[in-house]
Amino acid sequence: MDTTEIQGLGAPRQPAHQTVQNPVRLGQARLGDGSFYVIAGPCSIESEEHLLEVATHIKEHGALGLRGGMFKLRTDPNTFQGLGEKAFEAVMHVKQATGLTFFSEITDPRQIEGFHEFVDVYQVGSRNMYNYALLRELGQVRKPVLLKRGFSATVKEWLLASEYILKGGNNAVILCERGIRTFETSTRNTLDLNSVALVKQTSQLPVIVDPSHGTGVSALVTPLSLAAAALGADGLMVEVHPQPESAKSDGAQALTFDQFSWLMKQLRSVLGACNRELTHL
Amino acid sequence: MDTTEIQGLGAPRQPAHQTVQNPVRLGQARLGDGSFYVIAGPCSIESEEHLLEVATHIKEHGALGLRGGMFKLRTDPNTFQGLGEKAFEAVMHVKQATGLTFFSEITDPRQIEGFHEFVDVYQVGSRNMYNYALLRELGQVRKPVLLKRGFSATVKEWLLASEYILKGGNNAVILCERGIRTFETSTRNTLDLNSVALVKQTSQLPVIVDPSHGTGVSALVTPLSLAAAALGADGLMVEVHPQPESAKSDGAQALTFDQFSWLMKQLRSVLGACNRELTHL
Amino acid sequence: MDTTEIQGLGAPRQPAHQTVQNPVRLGQARLGDGSFYVIAGPCSIESEEHLLEVATHIKEHGALGLRGGMFKLRTDPNTFQGLGEKAFEAVMHVKQATGLTFFSEITDPRQIEGFHEFVDVYQVGSRNMYNYALLRELGQVRKPVLLKRGFSATVKEWLLASEYILKGGNNAVILCERGIRTFETSTRNTLDLNSVALVKQTSQLPVIVDPSHGTGVSALVTPLSLAAAALGADGLMVEVHPQPESAKSDGAQALTFDQFSWLMKQLRSVLGACNRELTHL
Amino acid sequence: MDTTEIQGLGAPRQPAHQTVQNPVRLGQARLGDGSFYVIAGPCSIESEEHLLEVATHIKEHGALGLRGGMFKLRTDPNTFQGLGEKAFEAVMHVKQATGLTFFSEITDPRQIEGFHEFVDVYQVGSRNMYNYALLRELGQVRKPVLLKRGFSATVKEWLLASEYILKGGNNAVILCERGIRTFETSTRNTLDLNSVALVKQTSQLPVIVDPSHGTGVSALVTPLSLAAAALGADGLMVEVHPQPESAKSDGAQALTFDQFSWLMKQLRSVLGACNRELTHL
Repeated sequence: MDTTEIQGLGAPRQPAHQTVQNPVRLGQARLGDGSFYVIAGPCSIESEEHLLEVATHIKEHGALGLRGGMFKLRTDPNTFQGLGEKAFEAVMHVKQATGLTFFSEITDPRQIEGFHEFVDVYQVGSRNMYNYALLRELGQVRKPVLLKRGFSATVKEWLLASEYILKGGNNAVILCERGIRTFETSTRNTLDLNSVALVKQTSQLPVIVDPSHGTGVSALVTPLSLAAAALGADGLMVEVHPQPESAKSDGAQALTFDQFSWLMKQLRSVLGACNRELTHL
Repeated sequence: MDTTEIQGLGAPRQPAHQTVQNPVRLGQARLGDGSFYVIAGPCSIESEEHLLEVATHIKEHGALGLRGGMFKLRTDPNTFQGLGEKAFEAVMHVKQATGLTFFSEITDPRQIEGFHEFVDVYQVGSRNMYNYALLRELGQVRKPVLLKRGFSATVKEWLLASEYILKGGNNAVILCERGIRTFETSTRNTLDLNSVALVKQTSQLPVIVDPSHGTGVSALVTPLSLAAAALGADGLMVEVHPQPESAKSDGAQALTFDQFSWLMKQLRSVLGACNRELTHL
Repeated sequence: MDTTEIQGLGAPRQPAHQTVQNPVRLGQARLGDGSFYVIAGPCSIESEEHLLEVATHIKEHGALGLRGGMFKLRTDPNTFQGLGEKAFEAVMHVKQATGLTFFSEITDPRQIEGFHEFVDVYQVGSRNMYNYALLRELGQVRKPVLLKRGFSATVKEWLLASEYILKGGNNAVILCERGIRTFETSTRNTLDLNSVALVKQTSQLPVIVDPSHGTGVSALVTPLSLAAAALGADGLMVEVHPQPESAKSDGAQALTFDQFSWLMKQLRSVLGACNRELTHL
Repeated sequence: MDTTEIQGLGAPRQPAHQTVQNPVRLGQARLGDGSFYVIAGPCSIESEEHLLEVATHIKEHGALGLRGGMFKLRTDPNTFQGLGEKAFEAVMHVKQATGLTFFSEITDPRQIEGFHEFVDVYQVGSRNMYNYALLRELGQVRKPVLLKRGFSATVKEWLLASEYILKGGNNAVILCERGIRTFETSTRNTLDLNSVALVKQTSQLPVIVDPSHGTGVSALVTPLSLAAAALGADGLMVEVHPQPESAKSDGAQALTFDQFSWLMKQLRSVLGACNRELTHL
C-alpha cells in the first residue's frame, strides 16, 4: 500500500468526506467509516474524581473517546509532569464506569507493556512523531495508534512516519493534525486544515483534528471544530475541564462543560448538512 | 476605534458568526451583515468573452462579486503580466451585462484615479500589505478596500495595516485571509483559519477567505470553502475558469464551472445549519 | 544575463569571496570589487547634529556609507514616522561635511524625483521587496539601488525581484540580506547567511548583510558581522547611535560608538586573514 | 545553574568567543576551552575501510573527533538505514588505529548500554531533541552528550531540553546548531548563526555548528564554517566522504578530501585573526 503519493490533486474529485478505506475499530465503533468521532478529556489526569466528572459529562453529550495524559514530559522539566503510574487505577475505574475508549500518550518504547492493560489507543504526540524507534515498536502492537503530526513535519513526512507503524503489520493507524509552528504569535500553533483535506484525498488512513493544541485559545476551539467537520475530517480531539482556569496544564485551551455541550449541538447540525452524523454505538 | 487588541480570548464568547459592527456596503448588499458573500472569477482577465462567460455562470449560482486581475505584477517579470488597460472596456461591458460588483487589484498609488470609474472595490494583494504608501492613499478614497493578509504577516500586523486605511477616513475595509507561507511544500500556502476566527473575535472588520491562493490546489478549494463557512467567515473569494488547464495564470487552483456550482450548493447547506444564508440582493 | 539559476551547487568551487563581476560604483569606491564596504548610521535621522555626530564617528573608523531613514512608514501608524522632508537639509550638510555616500529608503515611486538630489543610493526595504511597481520605476533611474530581501522571500524571489530593476536598464543593484521571519522569538529575525553564500555562488550581484535588523539585538551584531566578513559578503550595513537607549526607533539593535569602533578593528583582522581589506578611497 | 535566561542582551558584552565555563573533556582535549574543536566523518559508516580512509585523512588535517552513523532511522523507512551492529567492530578498529574521539547518534534509550563500550560521545539528533525519555536516560550516563537543536526548536526549548540531561547529573553537554526549517527551499535547512551567538551570551554550555546539515549543499559548507569560527562557535561538525557522489546517504552535502583540507587551512587563518586556534592534544 502506498499512502505517500501526493500528486494529481488538480483533477476534480468526489466530496472530501467520502468513507475512507481503512476505518479503525474502537470497541463497537469505527473511526473513519464516514461518521464523526469525538474524543475529549483533560490535558492531564489530575485525580480519579476529576477524570470521572469530565468523562461523565462528555459521554452524556456524545463523545466516545476519553483523552487524558498520565506521563507529561513537558518542554520545561521543572513543570508538572503528570500523575504517572498513580493514574492507572483511576483510568481503570473510569473506563469501567463509562465504557469510553481511552487514549493516552506514550513517549518511550519501554512503556508499551505497562500501558497495555488499560490504554485502548496509544497516542504518539507531536514531539515524538520523528521518534522512529518508538513508532517501529508500535508496529508490533495489536492496538490502534493515534499519530499526531509533528508541529514542523510536512504532510509527506507525517505519512512516511505512519509507514514505520504500518510496515510492522499494525494497520490501525489514526492520523491527527494538531497545529503547526509558524511565525504567528497570537495563537499557540497554526491549525493546518489544508493538510487534513490533502490527507483525505491522498491517504487511506482516517484523520482527525485537535483544535485545542491547534489554536491554544479556548475561544477559537469551537469555530475550528465546526470547520473541521465541514471540511470532512473523521473526528475531533478536544480538551475539556470543569474549571479551566485552575487546570494543572494547558487551561487556556480547555473548553468548559457548557462550551463542550454547545459545541456538540452545533457539530450535529453542521454534520447533518453534510449528510453525516456523530459516530455512535 | 481600536481594532488591534488581541487579548482576553480565553473567556467564553458568543458564536463566532455574530453580525460584525462594520459591514461594508457593496451596491445593494452588505458584506459582513451576518450573511455570506461570494466573490468569484478568473485569476486574470484573458478577454471580454472569457470574462462574460465566467461572470454569467457565477452570477447564476449566487455570487455577487466578480474578481479578475488586469495588471499582474507577478514574481517573475518574464511571465504573463495581465491585459493591462485593454481590460478596462471588457470590465465595463461585463458589469453592465451582469450587475456584479467588480474587485480588482491595485499595486501603485498612481493607478487609483484611472481605476476609479469601473472598479467597485480596490483590492490590495498579499505582496502589498506592507506597502503603506499605497494603503495611506487608499484611506483618502471613497470606495471599499479589500486588504489581503501578507503571506508572512502576523494577525497584529494585518490589523495595523488596516489602520493605515482607516486613519485616512475610509471605514469600508474588508479583510481577506489568503494563506501564509510555512515550511510545507505540498500546498502552495497554508490557509490560516485560526486567523479568521481570531479576527472575528477581536476586530469589527468583516473578514473573508481566499482558499484558491490559500491552498493552490483546486481539489482542496471546496473543502476549505465549506470550512470557512462553518467557522463564521463573512465570505469567500475563489478562482473559477471554464478550462483551468489552459488558464494563462494559476490554472492549478481554479474551479471548473461544475465544481463551482457544486460548491455553492454545499455552501447553502452548511450555512443553513448555522442559521445563515448566502448574501443576496 | 541570468541571475536566477540556482543549481549545480554540489561541485567544488573557488573561495566564496571571489571578485563579483558586477561591482557597483559608489563615488570613487566600488562595492563588490573584493573589498568589504561598511555602511553605518542611525535607524532614523533625528536631527542634523545627531546625524553629523554619527557620521563623523563612523567615517573616522572606516565606514564609507551613511544610512539614515527620513520617511519611516512603520508597522504601527501611530509610532514615530521619521522627520520627513525636514531631514533633506540635514543630509545635504552632513554629506558636504563628511563626503560619505548616503543611502536612504524609498517607499513610493513618487518620491524618486524629490530624493534624486541628495540620495546616492535608493534603498528598497524588506517590506517593499515585492512592490514591483516601485522596482520597475527604479529600473529607469541612473543611481544605484540597494534591494533588501523580503523577510519571507525565497532567494529565488529575491533574485527575480532584482530583475524588475535590471530589466529597466539599471545594472547598479546591491543585494542586502537583513534577516528572515521564522518561528524563533528570542531574536527579532533570523539572519540567513546561507542565502548570502548562495548568492555569491549563483549571482553576479554584490551582496551585503544587515545584522542590526537580522538579529534585533545589539550584543549579537558584532559576532554576526564578523561571520559575514569571514563568509565572503561584500559588505555590511549596521545601525549606530550615540545613546541607543534613547533612540527614537530600534534602539535595542544599535551599536554604541565604542562597540562600532571595536567592530571595525576586529573586521580588519578577520578580513586580513582572508586576504581582503575594508573598501577605501 | 540556570542556562535558560535569555535577557538583557542589549548591553555591551565582552567578545563572544570568551572561554565558556563548562568545557567538556574529550580524551585529553577540552571542547569549549576557547579553542576550536573539529569533528568530521561520513554521514553513515559504509565499511571499515571506508571509515579508516576518512579518519586517517581528517586526523592528518587537524580534526580530533570522528562522526559516523550506525543506525540511521531516516524519514523514509524504505531507504538505507545504516550498517547497524555490523559497524561496531569497524569503529573499534578505527579508534585504535587513529585515537580519534568517536561521536555517534543514539535514538532509543535501550541502545545506551550496547553503545557504551565504543562510543565516546552520545549524539542526540535533531529529530530526537524533544525525546525527553531518551534525554532523561542520558542524564544518568557518565559520558558526554552532543545535543543537536531540533530543526524547529526555539533556542529556549533547546536549552530546556539540555536541562533534562543536566538534571540527571550529567554536566558534559555540548550543543550543536544544525539548521532550522524555514520557508526557503533552495537550501536543505537554514543555518541559524543568531542562535549560536545567543547561546554564547546566555549559556555556559559549549556550542558547535553543523553546516553540512545546516545547508545541505557542499559548496556552502566552507563559507559557513568560516563564519562559525569568526562568530565564536566552539567547534564544527562536518561530513567528509572520499567520493560524495557515490555516498549511501547525504552525498550532496559532504566535502571531498581536498575541500576538507582547504577548509582546515582557512580555519586556522580565521581563528588566528581572532586570537584562537584549533583544539589540539
